[in-house]
Amino acid sequence: MKEFDMIKRFFAEQSVKRKDVLLGIGDDCAIVKPDERYNLAITTDTLVAGVHFPHNTEARAIGHKVIAVSLSDLAAMGAEPNWLSLAITLPKIDEAWLKEFCAGVFELAEYFNVQLIGGDTTQGPLSVTVTAQGTTPEGKHLSRTGAKAGDWIYVTGEVGDAGLALKHIQGEIKVEDVFVDQIVSKLNYPKPRVLAGQALREYASAAIDISDGLIADLTHICVASNVGANLVLDSLPLSKVMLSTLEQSEAAKLAISAGDDYELLFTVSEDNKVGMETALNNLGVAIKRIGQINANGKITTTFDSKPVVLELKGYEHFSNAQ
Amino acid sequence: MKEFDMIKRFFAEQSVKRKDVLLGIGDDCAIVKPDERYNLAITTDTLVAGVHFPHNTEARAIGHKVIAVSLSDLAAMGAEPNWLSLAITLPKIDEAWLKEFCAGVFELAEYFNVQLIGGDTTQGPLSVTVTAQGTTPEGKHLSRTGAKAGDWIYVTGEVGDAGLALKHIQGEIKVEDVFVDQIVSKLNYPKPRVLAGQALREYASAAIDISDGLIADLTHICVASNVGANLVLDSLPLSKVMLSTLEQSEAAKLAISAGDDYELLFTVSEDNKVGMETALNNLGVAIKRIGQINANGKITTTFDSKPVVLELKGYEHFSNAQ
Repeated sequence: MKEFDMIKRFFAEQSVKRKDVLLGIGDDCAIVKPDERYNLAITTDTLVAGVHFPHNTEARAIGHKVIAVSLSDLAAMGAEPNWLSLAITLPKIDEAWLKEFCAGVFELAEYFNVQLIGGDTTQGPLSVTVTAQGTTPEGKHLSRTGAKAGDWIYVTGEVGDAGLALKHIQGEIKVEDVFVDQIVSKLNYPKPRVLAGQALREYASAAIDISDGLIADLTHICVASNVGANLVLDSLPLSKVMLSTLEQSEAAKLAISAGDDYELLFTVSEDNKVGMETALNNLGVAIKRIGQINANGKITTTFDSKPVVLELKGYEHFSNAQ
Repeated sequence: MKEFDMIKRFFAEQSVKRKDVLLGIGDDCAIVKPDERYNLAITTDTLVAGVHFPHNTEARAIGHKVIAVSLSDLAAMGAEPNWLSLAITLPKIDEAWLKEFCAGVFELAEYFNVQLIGGDTTQGPLSVTVTAQGTTPEGKHLSRTGAKAGDWIYVTGEVGDAGLALKHIQGEIKVEDVFVDQIVSKLNYPKPRVLAGQALREYASAAIDISDGLIADLTHICVASNVGANLVLDSLPLSKVMLSTLEQSEAAKLAISAGDDYELLFTVSEDNKVGMETALNNLGVAIKRIGQINANGKITTTFDSKPVVLELKGYEHFSNAQ
C-alpha cells in the first residue's frame, strides 16, 4: 500500500465535519476560517515509543493519548478545541495497528467535535506529533501567570494513578490484580479536562495541566507568576487504589512527583472561590483545594501539619542524559 | 541541562516578534490573534533522519529544510506565512548541533517574518516535525483542484537538481567536483517560493509544490481536478550542471521523477497567461511553460515531439515496504 492510499483510507474517513474547515486533508495545506471574536490557542506534543509509552502499548491507547495530551494543553488555557494536525512516523504499515490507532484518535476527536485537518505520514521509529488548535474568547485565555499571594490552589479529579500504573508496569510497586486494569487505564486513556478548563476562564487566576508532575507543574505556575506556594499533602485527592496500595504519605509523594495525570492545577482568589466551586460542581467535575499561593517565592509542603522536605522532581526528558 | 532550559535557551531567543502573537513559547499553548479578513492555511511536515536526509547531514541544513518544506506548502496555497510550531526529537542534547539547527530555522523564519510560537522537545531517534500556519485573503487560496482542459502548465525555477545531488551522494551519478557544492546546496537549502505563491493567487487555476517529484505532483493536480496533461520534456527548465552531467533526455527523466525541488507547479488559463507572466517577472522569479492540461484524464509526455513511455514515479514512503 502506498502512503497516499494509507492517508486516505485511515485518516480521511472521520465523522466530524466542521463548518469552519474549508479544506481538510488532501491538499498542501488545510484551510480554515477562524471566528473573528476569538483568539487561537495552539499546542504541539510528541510521544516517542520507548520514552513516553512502552513499546508494547496498544495502538488505540497511543492514538487516544496523543490527542488527550494535546487537548489537555488546550484545556489548561481554557480553549475550546477545533482542529488537529497529526504527524505519525511508523516503522512499517500495519493495517490492524493503524485501525486501532485511528480508533483511539477519532474516539476523542469526535467526543470533543475536533476535526483532523492534515498531517504527515513518514517511515521511521514509532512516534506521533500532534498540533491541536482551539479558540478562546478574545482576551479571556488562562495562563501560568496571574497567581497571586493568598489565592487558593486547586486540582481536578485524582492525582497519582498514572504514576502508580507506571511503577506497577516497571515492577517497582505491586498493585493488586483486581485494580490493575483500572489503574493502567488511567495511564493509557487520560481524560482531558476540556469543559472544566473553559469554565475556569471566568474564575482562575492561573492554570496548567499536570503533565510533568504536580510539584513540577506548580513550580511552573510559581515561576511564571513570581510567587511561592504552600502545598498540603494530606489534602491531595488520592484514589482508593492508591490508598489501598501505599501509605498515605508515600502515596502523596508519588502523586506529586509522577506525571501523566492530565488533571488541571489552578489558582483561584478568595473572591472567585464560591463561583468556581459552583461552576465545576455543575459540570460534575470533582475538585480539591490542596494549598495556597504565598508571596515569598518558595514552595513548601506539609503533611500532618509538619514540614516535608522533598527530594522529588517532575518528569523531565534528558534529565538523566547530562 | 534540562529540557526546559534547553527550550528557553535555543528556541525562545528569536528576533521575530509579531504583533498577532499574544503569547509565544513558554505556556501550555501559544495564543495568536488571526486577522478576521483572512483564512488560515495549515501544514505539517516531518523529516526523519536516514529517510528524508542522510544521518550525517549538517544540522543547519536540517533546520533550514524542515522550515523550507513547510513554507513551500504554504506557498503552494498562496498563503503568507505567520507562525511555526516545531517538534524536535533528539537522541541527546548536543549544544553545538542545536545552535546550528536553530541557525537554519531562524534564518528562514526571519527572512519571511515567521515567528516560532511553540513546539515540543523529546528524546529519541532524530526527527523534526513542523506545523506552519499562514493566511490567505478569504476565498482566495490556491489548491490542487481547478485545473481545466486548455490551461497551460508552468513551473518555477529549475527542476531536478535536488534529485541529481541525491544520486551523486548515493554514488549513482558522478557530478563534476566543481559543481558538487552548488548542487548539494540545492538539495539541502531549498528556497520556498513564498512570494511567487502569493502572486499566483490572482492567476493560477491550480498549484502544488514539487516535493514528491514533478510527475507525481502533476498527477496530484490532475486527479484532484479530474483532468489529464501533456508534458513536453524538452521544455523542462534544467540547470547547467544537470545538462553538463546528463544527456537532455536522461536529465529530463530524472527531473520529473526526483522529488525535493520545492518549486511551484501550476496551471494558468490562456486568459491569465500574460498577467501571470508579468507578475512573476516583476518578482524576478523565472518560470517555464512545460505543457498543457487536457480533458482525457491521462498524463502523456513527449520528447522531441515523440511520445515517451514513462516507468517512473515520485518519491513515496513505504512504497518498497509492501
